[in-house]
Amino acid sequence: MTVTAAGAALEALDSVRVMAIGVRPAREVTGSVGVRRYLHAGPPLGAARMIGPLRGALIGALMLEGEAESPETAARILDGGGLDLASCHDNGGVGALAGVVTPSMPVVVMETDRGSQAFSPLNEGLGRALRFGSYDPETLERLRWMVAIAGPVLDAAISQVGGLDMVDLWAEGLRRGDECHNRNVASSAAVLGHLAPAIVAAADRRDAVDVLSYIAANPHFFLALSIAAAKALSDAVHRTDDPGVVTAMSSNGASLGIRVSGAGDRWFLTDSPTGEPKLFEGYTPADASPVLGDSFIAETVGLGAFALSAAPAIVSFVGGDPLTSSETVEELRGICRGSSSRFLVPSEGFRGTPIGIDVHKVATTGIAPLANAGLAHREPGRGQVGACLLRLPLQPFAEAAAFLAA
Amino acid sequence: MTVTAAGAALEALDSVRVMAIGVRPAREVTGSVGVRRYLHAGPPLGAARMIGPLRGALIGALMLEGEAESPETAARILDGGGLDLASCHDNGGVGALAGVVTPSMPVVVMETDRGSQAFSPLNEGLGRALRFGSYDPETLERLRWMVAIAGPVLDAAISQVGGLDMVDLWAEGLRRGDECHNRNVASSAAVLGHLAPAIVAAADRRDAVDVLSYIAANPHFFLALSIAAAKALSDAVHRTDDPGVVTAMSSNGASLGIRVSGAGDRWFLTDSPTGEPKLFEGYTPADASPVLGDSFIAETVGLGAFALSAAPAIVSFVGGDPLTSSETVEELRGICRGSSSRFLVPSEGFRGTPIGIDVHKVATTGIAPLANAGLAHREPGRGQVGACLLRLPLQPFAEAAAFLAA
Repeated sequence: MTVTAAGAALEALDSVRVMAIGVRPAREVTGSVGVRRYLHAGPPLGAARMIGPLRGALIGALMLEGEAESPETAARILDGGGLDLASCHDNGGVGALAGVVTPSMPVVVMETDRGSQAFSPLNEGLGRALRFGSYDPETLERLRWMVAIAGPVLDAAISQVGGLDMVDLWAEGLRRGDECHNRNVASSAAVLGHLAPAIVAAADRRDAVDVLSYIAANPHFFLALSIAAAKALSDAVHRTDDPGVVTAMSSNGASLGIRVSGAGDRWFLTDSPTGEPKLFEGYTPADASPVLGDSFIAETVGLGAFALSAAPAIVSFVGGDPLTSSETVEELRGICRGSSSRFLVPSEGFRGTPIGIDVHKVATTGIAPLANAGLAHREPGRGQVGACLLRLPLQPFAEAAAFLAA
Repeated sequence: MTVTAAGAALEALDSVRVMAIGVRPAREVTGSVGVRRYLHAGPPLGAARMIGPLRGALIGALMLEGEAESPETAARILDGGGLDLASCHDNGGVGALAGVVTPSMPVVVMETDRGSQAFSPLNEGLGRALRFGSYDPETLERLRWMVAIAGPVLDAAISQVGGLDMVDLWAEGLRRGDECHNRNVASSAAVLGHLAPAIVAAADRRDAVDVLSYIAANPHFFLALSIAAAKALSDAVHRTDDPGVVTAMSSNGASLGIRVSGAGDRWFLTDSPTGEPKLFEGYTPADASPVLGDSFIAETVGLGAFALSAAPAIVSFVGGDPLTSSETVEELRGICRGSSSRFLVPSEGFRGTPIGIDVHKVATTGIAPLANAGLAHREPGRGQVGACLLRLPLQPFAEAAAFLAA
């Protein structure tokens, strides 16, 4: 099925090309970070309470940047109001989970064929990680290695191969059982294949082995690329000003917000929900933090839960039933403006995933978008406790529809 | 669904573990190759006419081994009866398409947890290749590089990682949309991920770049591993002597034969069929050679066409309809002894693929096994012209059933 109800937003969503062009320190990519000026996931925090994983990530961020030598010092800076914070999404970027971006942090840079850019911090890998609020020595050591080695090596490798075509990678990812949000394992391996020879050419042997091992051991390496590219694509849709299409869904753990084309920089907000977690062994529902992060940007471009039928194996991670994944996606068609001509699901006869979430359709049908969400422990530094197939709250969609109708 | 109708053959098929343990020159792995003694795919040729791709491959093989300096000299050796030929399958190996194995050729070696081994030549990559009957300088140059560089580097890398668990790779391949016979792209990338750091550690920079590029550029790199492991598994089944399970289906381009547990070394033969090719652009059905090769061994262990529903994207290559792939597999359940507890199809609610093709069930139901088959050009050296979803001829299955009943 091809796009039927044309319009500038849908046209952009179905045709803008996105390339990964490099990996750079965030300070070279955006003016929105600097000394004690960092970014975080979700809508702007405002006066909202900072949840544990975000607090932990900011403590680690201050230590990474050399602003604090201990967690205690970092906490004092944070509690004393000594840190300026802004939203990734408001500044051309996205981050998974806590989504903290500091000046030195290596971010993957995306460029569209309409000239716009977006970025996201490289994924740190499994286990303890800043995005879950960890700030232990192991987490910081890995981040320092990423700053010093992985970032520059990957930048050189991506440059040497002439960039990575993200639409091709997404399309092939769906053929390999990824939905490119919470299942990224095949796409991560695909990127490794594209870059491996160039990594070896760009680095000395020790560094090449380390960078290859870092990618090979991380089934979510592709996530940073996927959400950075989705942000670049969504921002292109947002700039069409063709009103009513959702261009961001995101949570800072206190509030969940959406951005909608035609509504400018306005966020439509509600409280961050908790979801119905499918927990890793040893955790209880009380361990899970509210949903957190910018990664639902994947869903806004027709991936993630909107491509659930392409990735039936993901139900073992986020929950749901592989036998009904097509019905799940079919329901989401009811709130979208069309179907992708690029993201095709083989098991559905190469039908396109639904794209262009329309706030009016959400408001009218009462069908809320779904998202595949990873869940952090509610305490800083405890890591991931599980995942869920999240039904987003209706309220911000209804408010956006009312705002645009007014 | 788990295995229900137990029995030694089915039990072996569902439980034997297989590891890739190295890549060695064929002469170190089998005594069946030597000076002017090579192996080929399919049942023994006997007095059968040699089809074009096999003839081309043997010409190239004689040049690779230094027995001939020109195709003309090689052809004279061949036509003068100066070459001893035997079947891969009869000697513990398998080869895709022409399946020619010479003493120096690097073969991937598999070992089961029951101590048995099997082997297959490394896949040469796309384009002109010996397995399609090519013997041009480019084909031979690549083979010489594989002998000198790729084989030893891969051997060292596989050894360094402690081997590759093939059952794990197969199981994950099905979750990534491969059926591990004619769709191997995700599994090839997975193997690259497992081996890349070790390849860099084992080789100098130039060779590491070349070996990584060779794997990354070859979506069928995994095929050699898959069929070698399937052969090791099938031979373990064959050795149970639990009668009536198909342990090889294979064609030399003149005759297609099957081997069946309980029937010893006997082949049950018929003429090699042509199939209904889905052709690459620019070819006509008259260009395709009859089906050729040992790679249907994948189907005998529950992969390939028996896992079609796990790999709906393959229909663009072999033909068929992604919307009916589950029904296709369901029909094959009618001729199998059980379902795999290891090869699970996510989109079917993690149901196992059918395993243990039973010749009596084939004979009784008249349902012939299916196989995903690549097709060579009928002239030597012209490469691949397409692929097909092949319905195997019933006759050898009926004959095997009658033989065992007698």
